[in-house]
Amino acid sequence: MLQHNTYFDGKVQSVGFERNGRRTTVGVIDVGEFHFGTGAPERMTVVSGELGVRVDGAAAFQAYPAGTSFEVPGNSGFDVRASAPTAYVCEFL
Amino acid sequence: MLQHNTYFDGKVQSVGFERNGRRTTVGVIDVGEFHFGTGAPERMTVVSGELGVRVDGAAAFQAYPAGTSFEVPGNSGFDVRASAPTAYVCEFL
Repeated sequence: MLQHNTYFDGKVQSVGFERNGRRTTVGVIDVGEFHFGTGAPERMTVVSGELGVRVDGAAAFQAYPAGTSFEVPGNSGFDVRASAPTAYVCEFL
Repeated sequence: MLQHNTYFDGKVQSVGFERNGRRTTVGVIDVGEFHFGTGAPERMTVVSGELGVRVDGAAAFQAYPAGTSFEVPGNSGFDVRASAPTAYVCEFL
């Protein structure tokens, strides 16, 4: 069963699913800067567009274009910045 | 502005956006078999999971695992078959 999630007044939206007991979402981040907290660790893969990302505790943003991934520890968080709508796959690890 | 789309009683859901004048959606196809019609030509890229696909007029289904793409002509259509929830990026060409 698929689940639609919406955050930040609809500027981040995703569709969640589970396969082989693993939770995953695919979604879109609209133009802006947003902070997400993590429960479980996550692997984020950009599939269209580009994100600037600063994991909590890091000094600077780093660019992740389509085709690249980053991981975020559990019970932590990260800032994302998009200058154009960008699509991602998020796997909960 | 992002747009949530839902089809087939929620068994296919996507989030649509536009970048550089190009419309794109990312979504999930739940377990089942579904037929989609096309207006504009589309490029579908599987980003998590695997789809069986039969473009209208083709004799047989062909497998598209994560990381592969197929294109569908405009004013046509295709059948998709998923044995587990599968995520895709759809670009309107």
